Amino acid sequence: MDNFIYETPTKVYFGKGEEERTGKLIKEAGATKVLLHYGGQSAKKSGLLDRIKGYLEAENIDYIELGGVVANPELKLVREGIALGIKEGVDFVLAVGGGSVLDSAKDIANGIANPDIDVWDFSLGKAVPAKTLKKGAVLTISAAGSEMSNSCVITNPDTKVKKGYSCTCNRMDFAIENPELTYSVSAYQTACGAVDIAMHTIERYFCKGEDTYLTDSIAEAIIRSAIKSGKDAVEHPDDYVARANMMWASSLAHNGLTQCGRSFLMAVHQLEHVISAHFPEVAHGAGLAALWCSWARYVYDANIPRFLQYAHNVWNVDIDFEHPEITINKAIDIQEEYYRSIGMPVSLTELGIKEADLEKLANGCSQNKTRVLDGYKKLGFEDMLNIYKMAL
Amino acid sequence: MDNFIYETPTKVYFGKGEEERTGKLIKEAGATKVLLHYGGQSAKKSGLLDRIKGYLEAENIDYIELGGVVANPELKLVREGIALGIKEGVDFVLAVGGGSVLDSAKDIANGIANPDIDVWDFSLGKAVPAKTLKKGAVLTISAAGSEMSNSCVITNPDTKVKKGYSCTCNRMDFAIENPELTYSVSAYQTACGAVDIAMHTIERYFCKGEDTYLTDSIAEAIIRSAIKSGKDAVEHPDDYVARANMMWASSLAHNGLTQCGRSFLMAVHQLEHVISAHFPEVAHGAGLAALWCSWARYVYDANIPRFLQYAHNVWNVDIDFEHPEITINKAIDIQEEYYRSIGMPVSLTELGIKEADLEKLANGCSQNKTRVLDGYKKLGFEDMLNIYKMAL
Repeated sequence: MDNFIYETPTKVYFGKGEEERTGKLIKEAGATKVLLHYGGQSAKKSGLLDRIKGYLEAENIDYIELGGVVANPELKLVREGIALGIKEGVDFVLAVGGGSVLDSAKDIANGIANPDIDVWDFSLGKAVPAKTLKKGAVLTISAAGSEMSNSCVITNPDTKVKKGYSCTCNRMDFAIENPELTYSVSAYQTACGAVDIAMHTIERYFCKGEDTYLTDSIAEAIIRSAIKSGKDAVEHPDDYVARANMMWASSLAHNGLTQCGRSFLMAVHQLEHVISAHFPEVAHGAGLAALWCSWARYVYDANIPRFLQYAHNVWNVDIDFEHPEITINKAIDIQEEYYRSIGMPVSLTELGIKEADLEKLANGCSQNKTRVLDGYKKLGFEDMLNIYKMAL
Repeated sequence: MDNFIYETPTKVYFGKGEEERTGKLIKEAGATKVLLHYGGQSAKKSGLLDRIKGYLEAENIDYIELGGVVANPELKLVREGIALGIKEGVDFVLAVGGGSVLDSAKDIANGIANPDIDVWDFSLGKAVPAKTLKKGAVLTISAAGSEMSNSCVITNPDTKVKKGYSCTCNRMDFAIENPELTYSVSAYQTACGAVDIAMHTIERYFCKGEDTYLTDSIAEAIIRSAIKSGKDAVEHPDDYVARANMMWASSLAHNGLTQCGRSFLMAVHQLEHVISAHFPEVAHGAGLAALWCSWARYVYDANIPRFLQYAHNVWNVDIDFEHPEITINKAIDIQEEYYRSIGMPVSLTELGIKEADLEKLANGCSQNKTRVLDGYKKLGFEDMLNIYKMAL
């Protein structure tokens, strides 16, 4: 078990009606001017946004609004939010939405607090925010885990680069998680969320690391729960139990709990980020579903005992020790079938990606053949291209 | 799933050599005068205490010392620490030791920060600390989980009352967890720790609550890991993997993770606290081991499906749906056998407690027949007495 630092400072208020606390929590945080950040129409149409404004007004909290965050949130709106926030003297950022809104809010908070640094330098790894603004989230989609994570992922459409960065400043001060607010999420987006949640932990599970049986066992618990709750929520959108277990899995899958004592490199996320940077209409979860099984078939032999443990403890496949590859492939097939059953793609073709696109993707992921992903199995440009080809 | 608040602000530095950070962390916290709080001889003899002092001195941090914390930490020393801390202008409390030292340190920090309130009123529930001092811990025993918990348990030997209280102020700012520091813990104390760790989560598992399958599954993972790592550490004191998984289980078992969405009442802990208040030589973990199986046999029929899930998922017992009580009793028997195998008592007699003592204990636990423990099954004075009798 490697040394590790565990830090999850975000205070979570979980359950029905918890969003009613929003105004009081921001008041307690001592904020004087809030940037209320959100996405498109859904928070408006559902009435949630008006309710949130009401909670702020009830506490006499001054706020300005910035909507319009899109899936795969873009640098341009982040820059706009930073300029607006500095001009208006914003000292708190409140995100109402899903992972894209939260990530955009994190980047804006970091940008406002560090006006002398170009915010894109955080994504590029050229700078680390030393301070940030206070910030909170009212979560409306279970998926990205941004509500408790230390990461934020921003896309620069001009350069087709989608990049995440991780730091303590990216932790929300509070996250409000009311599963009922996710009832209106479509079956497709719910399925994308289920894939993403499980994948945050599956990727950590397949990082390098030994002797972490407690972390492994917790990881398996979270993956199984994401699989079950995701499917239940797709089939029964108003099922509180499914929505609640899925929402809590979203937070735990990506807050650091499932990487304690292990190294950290999310290879399939890296392979996918290039896809959604080039094809912004591809939902992140769908991209992950389309890639993972091909990644797994390409790499599994790097650590057979690990994959057998996964096959057995997550997918309940009996282990055939004489033919471990049969066990492993069976588990991968079951996972593929699960993706199909919740309406997720299991190939890049289903996402409209063609063979002619693949070299561009592999070039992007390998940063023009300069980057090797040294995770479960080392992946250079050729490996990336092979995986994309297998996933066609 | 009930609404819940999840808050684990303690930053954990886990692994070999992490205690070397102590001075730097306290400096970063802006402390000017530290109260270095510890127990008896072991931290001195091992050289750890001198090393910690060295780390403080290397950062030019001023400190005073207060040793002498005993198992089941006592109010008298807490009062002494508060008086000393106020007199000396202490603004940081550093605990070096196990749960007793950490709990004593928490109470002292709360007492110094709230000089107008009698610190025992916090334990009695007559007051809640509104503020506290900054504090950190260098953990030397895996057991109590105090390093990440929001609780502290103090004993008043004059009144034979041992009482815990929970609040945000009881969270450590940081916890340093180096599993190697626990190599020297005796087999008996290691076994007591293993019992206590698992019990923190077992008790939460058997609180009221429905539809928390993610929390349940994480709880089962932690219980299983505590069982395995505890036994391995008893048998091989220098086994890093065992000590590390056990130490991390200690923190996760009691930091709130395993009660998310469920009610909270630790009945067996309440039954045990009276024992160690009256028989201070009884180690808390040993008292829990001596009681739990009797509690389980007395109460299991309150929720058969729950106990079957426990029997299967924790102790790997095949479920006999036609005779569920056979399955359940088999699991309890296996747990009892496990306790024996690690040298733990499975009866009060082994702890030197006699039938004549039991009424006094039941009176204590029921607070002279005024308190009912409304947990997995409602327990009044008569029930408590029955359980103590079964445990003889």
